[in-house]
Amino acid sequence: MGDREISKAVIKRLPRYYRYLGEILNNGVERISSGELSGKMQVTASQIRQDLNNFGGFGQQGYGYNVKFLYDEIGKILGVNRDHPMIIVGGGNFGHTLAKYDFKKSGFVTKAIFDVRPEMIGEYVGGIPVYMMSELESYLKKETVEIAVLTVPKNKVKEVADRLVKYGIKAFWNFAHLDLDVPDDVVVENVHLIDSLMQLSYRISDYEKKAE
Amino acid sequence: MGDREISKAVIKRLPRYYRYLGEILNNGVERISSGELSGKMQVTASQIRQDLNNFGGFGQQGYGYNVKFLYDEIGKILGVNRDHPMIIVGGGNFGHTLAKYDFKKSGFVTKAIFDVRPEMIGEYVGGIPVYMMSELESYLKKETVEIAVLTVPKNKVKEVADRLVKYGIKAFWNFAHLDLDVPDDVVVENVHLIDSLMQLSYRISDYEKKAE
Repeated sequence: MGDREISKAVIKRLPRYYRYLGEILNNGVERISSGELSGKMQVTASQIRQDLNNFGGFGQQGYGYNVKFLYDEIGKILGVNRDHPMIIVGGGNFGHTLAKYDFKKSGFVTKAIFDVRPEMIGEYVGGIPVYMMSELESYLKKETVEIAVLTVPKNKVKEVADRLVKYGIKAFWNFAHLDLDVPDDVVVENVHLIDSLMQLSYRISDYEKKAE
Repeated sequence: MGDREISKAVIKRLPRYYRYLGEILNNGVERISSGELSGKMQVTASQIRQDLNNFGGFGQQGYGYNVKFLYDEIGKILGVNRDHPMIIVGGGNFGHTLAKYDFKKSGFVTKAIFDVRPEMIGEYVGGIPVYMMSELESYLKKETVEIAVLTVPKNKVKEVADRLVKYGIKAFWNFAHLDLDVPDDVVVENVHLIDSLMQLSYRISDYEKKAE
C-alpha cells in the first residue's frame, strides 16, 4: 500500500463500496465492471477506478472486478476482516440504543457498558453487562478493548476521555457534541448529530436560494 | 452570496465554527482574531480566513471578528436562524432516542413520530405524540413538516421514502443503512453508523501500519 496518504473522501467512500459489493455478492454476482458498479452507486466509473487504484487496482481491463476478491480486499483495508472489541461509556438513552444495535455482524463487538448510576449495577442491556465507572481501570487491565464509544454528557467527556487514554484506549467513537483533545496516537471518529442536522438545513436553505 | 458552489469540506466545518462561536459568546467574548479561533478549533488561521471569505469575510484587518455578528451570520448561512419542523418515521429504539434528544434548542423541532405498531397508538415519547403510518398523508396535508427523520428498518426505507416524497417532503435525515434514491430537488443527509465505525477501523489499521 505504500506510505501515500489516502484522501478522506476516498476513505469515506470505501464503506459504501464494501456495502454494495456485499449486497452484490449476496445476490450471487461474481464479476462486475466499474460501469455497472457506477450505475448502482451514483459515483462515476472513472471515480471508482481511480479510488480503487489507490489500493492497487484489483481490476483487469475488459474483464471487470472479481466481486469476492474486491470485497475481501476492501474489508482488509477497512480493517473489518477482524473483530474490534468495544465498550460503551455512558448508559443513557443513546448508550442503550447503541448497545442494542447490530454492529456485531460487521465485527464491532460491544463487550461492556459503563455507567455511574448505582441502580444499573448488575443490569444487562441487549445482553451486554453494565459495570460501574469505578470498575473501568480494573476491567481494562484484564480485558482487551480497542474502541471506546462515548455517550456521556458533554460536561463529562473531557474527564472520561482523559481516563480512557490513560488506561490505554487508542480509538474513540464520540457521540458527545464536543471535539476531543487527545494525543496524536489516538484516533477519533465523531458522530455529531447536531452538526449533521445543520448540514442538512444548510442544504435546504441553499436549495431554496437556487430555486428562487 | 453569489452562485458559487461552496465545497462540502467548508460546509462540514461551518457547524463547528457555529458551535465554537456560540461557546465563546456565552463566555462574554465580543471579538476574536482568526488566530485565536484557530487555536481553539485546530484549524489553521489561514484556513479560517479562507472559509469565511466564501461568505463575504465578516472580518476586518487587525481588528478581528465581531463574535455575535459572525455567529448570527453563520447561523443564517446554516439556516438555523429559523425553526425546522421534523417528523420521525420509525418509532423503534433509535426513533425513541432521537425523540428524546434535545435538537429543539438548535431549531430542529420534532412534531410527531410515525410507526406501524398499533400498540403505540396514543403514546407519547419524550412528549411527542405517536401516530400510525396510515395517518401520514392526512397529517402532512394539515401540518407543515420540513424534515423527515428515517429510522425505519432497511427493507422498508424505499417504500417509506417514496411515500414521503409523494406527500411533499423535500429533506431527509436518513439513519437507515441504505442510500436513498430520491428526485434531484430532495436533499438527504445520511447518518450511516456502520460506515462511521468502518472509517474508524480504517484509521486504526492505518495508524498501526504506519507505526510498524
